[in-house]
This record gives sequence, structure tokens and C-alpha cells, in this order.
Amino acid sequence: MELIEICKNSKKASKDLAKLNSCEKNEILKACANTLLDNTQEIIKANKIDVENAKKNNIKESLIDRLLLDEKRIQAMANGILQIANLEDPLDEYIEMKVLPNGLKVGKKRVAMGVIGIIYEARPNVTSDAFAMCFKASSSVILKGGKEAINSNKAIVDLFRKTIKNLGYNENIVMLIEDTNRETTTKFMKMNNYVDLLIPRGGAGLIKAVIENSTIPVIETGVGNCHIFIDEFANKDKAIDIVLNAKVQRPSVCNAMETLLVHTNIAKEILPEICEKLIENNVEIRGDSTVCEICKNPKMATEDDWKEEFLDYILAIKCVDSIEDAILHIQTYSTGHSEAIITENYTNYNKFVDEIDSAAVYVNASTRFTDGEQFGLGAEIGISTQKLHARGPMGIKEITSYKYIVLGNGQIRN
Amino acid sequence: MELIEICKNSKKASKDLAKLNSCEKNEILKACANTLLDNTQEIIKANKIDVENAKKNNIKESLIDRLLLDEKRIQAMANGILQIANLEDPLDEYIEMKVLPNGLKVGKKRVAMGVIGIIYEARPNVTSDAFAMCFKASSSVILKGGKEAINSNKAIVDLFRKTIKNLGYNENIVMLIEDTNRETTTKFMKMNNYVDLLIPRGGAGLIKAVIENSTIPVIETGVGNCHIFIDEFANKDKAIDIVLNAKVQRPSVCNAMETLLVHTNIAKEILPEICEKLIENNVEIRGDSTVCEICKNPKMATEDDWKEEFLDYILAIKCVDSIEDAILHIQTYSTGHSEAIITENYTNYNKFVDEIDSAAVYVNASTRFTDGEQFGLGAEIGISTQKLHARGPMGIKEITSYKYIVLGNGQIRN
Repeated sequence: MELIEICKNSKKASKDLAKLNSCEKNEILKACANTLLDNTQEIIKANKIDVENAKKNNIKESLIDRLLLDEKRIQAMANGILQIANLEDPLDEYIEMKVLPNGLKVGKKRVAMGVIGIIYEARPNVTSDAFAMCFKASSSVILKGGKEAINSNKAIVDLFRKTIKNLGYNENIVMLIEDTNRETTTKFMKMNNYVDLLIPRGGAGLIKAVIENSTIPVIETGVGNCHIFIDEFANKDKAIDIVLNAKVQRPSVCNAMETLLVHTNIAKEILPEICEKLIENNVEIRGDSTVCEICKNPKMATEDDWKEEFLDYILAIKCVDSIEDAILHIQTYSTGHSEAIITENYTNYNKFVDEIDSAAVYVNASTRFTDGEQFGLGAEIGISTQKLHARGPMGIKEITSYKYIVLGNGQIRN
Repeated sequence: MELIEICKNSKKASKDLAKLNSCEKNEILKACANTLLDNTQEIIKANKIDVENAKKNNIKESLIDRLLLDEKRIQAMANGILQIANLEDPLDEYIEMKVLPNGLKVGKKRVAMGVIGIIYEARPNVTSDAFAMCFKASSSVILKGGKEAINSNKAIVDLFRKTIKNLGYNENIVMLIEDTNRETTTKFMKMNNYVDLLIPRGGAGLIKAVIENSTIPVIETGVGNCHIFIDEFANKDKAIDIVLNAKVQRPSVCNAMETLLVHTNIAKEILPEICEKLIENNVEIRGDSTVCEICKNPKMATEDDWKEEFLDYILAIKCVDSIEDAILHIQTYSTGHSEAIITENYTNYNKFVDEIDSAAVYVNASTRFTDGEQFGLGAEIGISTQKLHARGPMGIKEITSYKYIVLGNGQIRN
């Protein structure tokens, strides 16, 4: 199908979707979860083609691992859909209803966004998650996945569409752009007459391309150069636990710490133990000159290291003379994702929380908690690092809009 | 000053601004209102140059009227600033604070957007309004007004900057792009590293250019092809009053009605009187064939008339056989601004409110109420016709963002 036809059909389907109630939506979601379980072998067969092609093309082992589907992972996808079905319907809400002096009743009702486009890379589980979240939020979804996963994505989307059609609904509420060449993707980003919201999920390059080319409103997601600042008034045990957790527990994700800032007044007391434990956990340390004096064998950090989102067992460490210097460093290098202060001091904690302008600002906890499920949103379609519309983890409420409803009795304006 | 320097200075100033409390902000706003009153003659002198240039360039009388400043209008600008100073501070709010099972306290705090860009046409009062609203919302503002108003805008912004500097604050919280050529404007739209939000205020052409070129998140404003549907169960008197008000009270604004839809079952009873009254008020009627049969002398409507935002004493009228047809017509031609149904029927009112997806959906009231002040927001920076971030009238709360605050006691993630 031509791109323009996909967009038109999706827009049309979004109007049918807007009429479905919660029960009907949840029935469809449950059927889609079941179809994944019932057709596990068919999905695995399609996925094998993708994995073999990836191997032929010498794609990195870690990427092949993300691409791979097995019974356990398909089960997890189905469970994810059921979990989303069990969430409260985000559209069942009226907000801020009030009566104006002239008797007009004015308020907002939460409504569907309409059509949501998702551009992502080679993780076929995103196909299933993104569909389920957009659908629960009553929006049609147009999926554009990476070419490496095209056979897996086709298999999954075909199963969803068949299931929806069999239940008597419009299957165009979920559509896949099968043409994976770059020109088509760029054209897709210009479809602002049909698509209401575009969410890129992937690396910095993908996100940059979407921001530069899209005429559709975009929510920027995911790039996280996250910082932890150990204040001079930090509790040493908490500091060590949190630093280790934020770096080592899962270094490949966007909420992992990339730079550690340490107040010079506490550096000698705390840094040797921290560095030792990091090294035990295979972390490569890149420190400034003070860090290099205090610790054994760190590499000297360069300017680039303060900017880098390593997503790996690498940590940049810098000593600062004051909380002001720590805040200034973060303001200079942060991508606005997640930053933490470790301190027992009331004034410093307040200063940090007030002056750090990131999606999530922590006191005495690991940055690894920045996540829709951890924050209690039930599920997550991405972590916004922009300030418009939604910031931080986005659940289903964050991909809805609202409209004003005005109930009168013949009022006219003077 | 070079564009890039303006953007960098504005970003820097936004960080100073974030530290001001409500009292300090209101003190500055009051001083800015006073400086307009104290320097009225200076502003009028600058404005005269713009008006004379406009006359030389044969600019339309209605545009010259928008450009013109006199004592009364400058007084109104000052009053507008004072009104904004008196609004509650939108940043003084924590939202949805809760304690998670692991003891983490998680919630949102409303924060400033950062730097807001406003691109507008030749109305110098926007210079004053937009500054006051962005400032109250703790964001720096970069103003790019139309070239026709450049001398007026320079005079106003210079006065604000002097006043802010004299009070000991960073005057770069308000900056004007004085270079009014189109290339500079297009470059400005690409400054997403410095500017957090761009709001175009003006005609459809300006808004289209911004959407196509901007890499900064945009809120689309203002184009309103608004509809009123007179249902077969309408109260005749209410219908006539509302239709006249929505078309005639101020036809040049975006919330005025442009197309009237009438149920055929009530058309013969109600349309002759409506048409007569509209004609008395100098409204040109463009009707479909049924309307042409019922009423005297209307022009025949063309396909283009259903699409047009006339902003003038012109009204397109169409007869429809059902509420479904009315909804379909609106879904096809509406710009998503404001639509109304006139009905006494419970089921039809609910159907209309549920199925019409516009920023404001009315029952038995004039669409002319879609306005920040009328809706009780205190002031308005524009009316959003997109679904992301804010929809409908935008007050100061609508130009803020939020951040998550997470208060822990040593929590790490498993």
C-alpha cells in the first residue's frame, strides 16, 4: 500500500476507534495477546529470516540479541498487552469542569490523539507494545520499524490485523509501513495532515533526523547523559550503593549514570572505595586530574567524556569544589533526562531540586528508577526529554489530548 | 546582535529568571506597565514612523489600524500587563505527589518552559502581551514581529529592557530580533538547541511556514473555520440569537462562525428569518441549492466556500438531512477550532459532543466564547488548534512544563 493510503486509512480508522468503549477495546487487546501465543511458531519462523539476514550482514551481536524472538519473549509480549488491557481507560475522565458567571459550564474531556506514528529500530517487541498502548489510548498507530526486523514486524502486525478484523472492527487501527527505505521514512515525517503525533524510539541519530525533518509534532525521547552528584554532606553508604546501582545494574539503558560528580571535601574519603568497587564490576573510569591523584589507574577524562552517553561499562568522574559547580556542570552537559544528588543537607537538596532542570531530579536514590512502570504509570511508550506536552516517562495518559466542552443555554457574547 | 547571540543570551537569562520568586516577577511587571505609561509619547513617535512607512507602501487600511498605537491603546497594553501580574503564579504548584511501595516519594513540579519564541505580524500590542505572559510563566522570550512594526517594537522592548536592568535583573529575559528579513526568521526556527517552544501568531501562511521549517517544538494557533449546526430539535429563538452573534458581533476573529449547517426538517421554519437578519447586518450568504430555494437571493456556494475562513461579513449555509451528515461535514472541513450544536435533544447533544473533535465543542452557545479570558484563564497567548501539549485557549499555565521530583532514602533498583 502507498504511504499516503496508509495515512488516510489510519486517519479514517481513528474515527471508528474513537467510538469504541473500554470493554470493546479490552476485548480486542486480549484477543491480540492470545493470537501471539497461538501463533508463536509462525512468528519465530518469520523472525528466523530476519536473524539469518542480520548474521549475513555481519550485524553486531548485541543488536541480533535485541532482534531475536523466542517463546519466552513472545510470552512476555503477550503479557505486556494484557497488562495494558488491565489499566484504567485514560479517556474516561472529565477535568476542571466549572460554571462561569454567565452560566456557561466549561470543562475539558480527555480525548484520543488521533493517529500516532512510531519510528523505531530493530526491536520487534516495540511493535506489540506500541500498538497496545496507542490502542488503549484510542489512537490509531502507524508503525515504521527498522528494516532488520521487517519480517518479524509483518508477522506480528498481520496477526493483530486479522484478529481485529475477525472481531468485526476496522483493522486499519494498526498499520505497518513495509517499505523501509529512507526516502519513505522522510516522507512519512511530513504527513502532518494525517498524523497527530510522531514518537521516535531509538538512538540519538534517529531522533535528530526526526526533529530536523518532521512537520508532525514530535516528542523527543530517550537520550540520557545522566549525572549523580555526591555532596560533601552525603551519607557514605547510601552514596556507594546508589553509584554502583546507577552504573552497573544495567549500563545499556538511558537512565544509567554516565558522569559522577564528587565534592572535593569528601572525595578522598569516598572515591577510593567507589573506584575499587566499580573496577571490580569491570567499569572503566575516566577521571579529571583530582580523581587521577586519588584513585589507582583511571584514564584521564577528555572534554568529550563529559558529553558522552556511554551506555556501557564506562564512567566519567569529576571533582567539584561546590554544589554550584556541580549544578553548572550538569546544566552544561546534561541531556535533561535524570540527575541525582546524594546529600543529608536540607538546603543543598532544595537548591539541587530547584535549579536542576531535567525530566527527573532525584535525592538519595538511583537514577535507574526513571521508568513508566517504576513511577506507577503501568506501562511506558518512551521517556520524553523535551518540555512540551509530556516530560519524563510517558504512560497511556501522556499520549492523549483533551477538548473543551462548553454547555450553554443560549449564551451569546457581548 | 547576531541571531545566535540573541538565542544564547536568552537561554542564559532563562536560568536567572528561574530563580525569581513571584514578588520579584510582579515587581518587574508593574514597573514595565508604568514605563509604558511614562513613555507614551516616545512610543507614539516611533509608531508614527511605522504608520507613515505603511502608508507609503500602500498597506491595507485594516492592517494600518492594527499597527496604530495611541494613548488609549498604550494604556490598554499597560493594563494588560497589570492584569497578568495579578494572576496566580503558575509555577507555585506540586502535582500528583505520591509515595511508592518502596518508599520513594514521586511527584511533579510545574517548571518554566525555558525560552519561548513568538513569531507574529504587525500588531505591536502582541509585543507587550507576549512578554508579560512568558515572563509571568518564568520563561525568557525572543520576539520576532512583523517588519511593518519594527520601530514600535524596538521602542517597547527597549523600554522593558531598561526597566528590568534598572531594577538590577538580567534584561535579556526579553529580546527582539531586529533583523526582519525572511532568512533570519527561517534560521530562528532552527534554533532548537536554545529555544524550547515556538508559537506563531498570525495568518494561515505564517503558521504553515513555521510548521514546515521549525525544528523547535511548535504550538499551532488560530485558524478557525468554525461551524454551527441547527439541529431539528433546536429552540428557534436561541438558534437565531446564537447564529447572529457568532457571525456578526466580530467577524474578523478566529472564533467567528464561517459555515452554518441546518437540519432540513427545520430549515423552512427558521432559515428565512435567519437570512433576513443576516442580510440586515450586511452579511453575504452563500447557500447550497436547498438554501437558495428557501431564502431570497443568496449566492450559490462552491466547494471552496466550505473550506474558507472568511473572517468577514460572509457566511456559507448548507442544509443537511441528519446529525450524521452535519458531523461528517464538520469532520471534513473543520480546522478543529470551535463548533456548536443548537438542540434541545439529549441524545443528539451527546452525540455531537462525543464525535466532534475540535478544541472547543459547544451546546446552545455562541462559538465567540473560545477565548482565554472568557474561559477564565485570565489572559491568552493564543488558541491552539493542535492536539499536543495544549488545546484551545492557552493561558500562562499552558506555556509551562513540569519535572518529576523523586525523594529517596538510599533506594536502588533491583
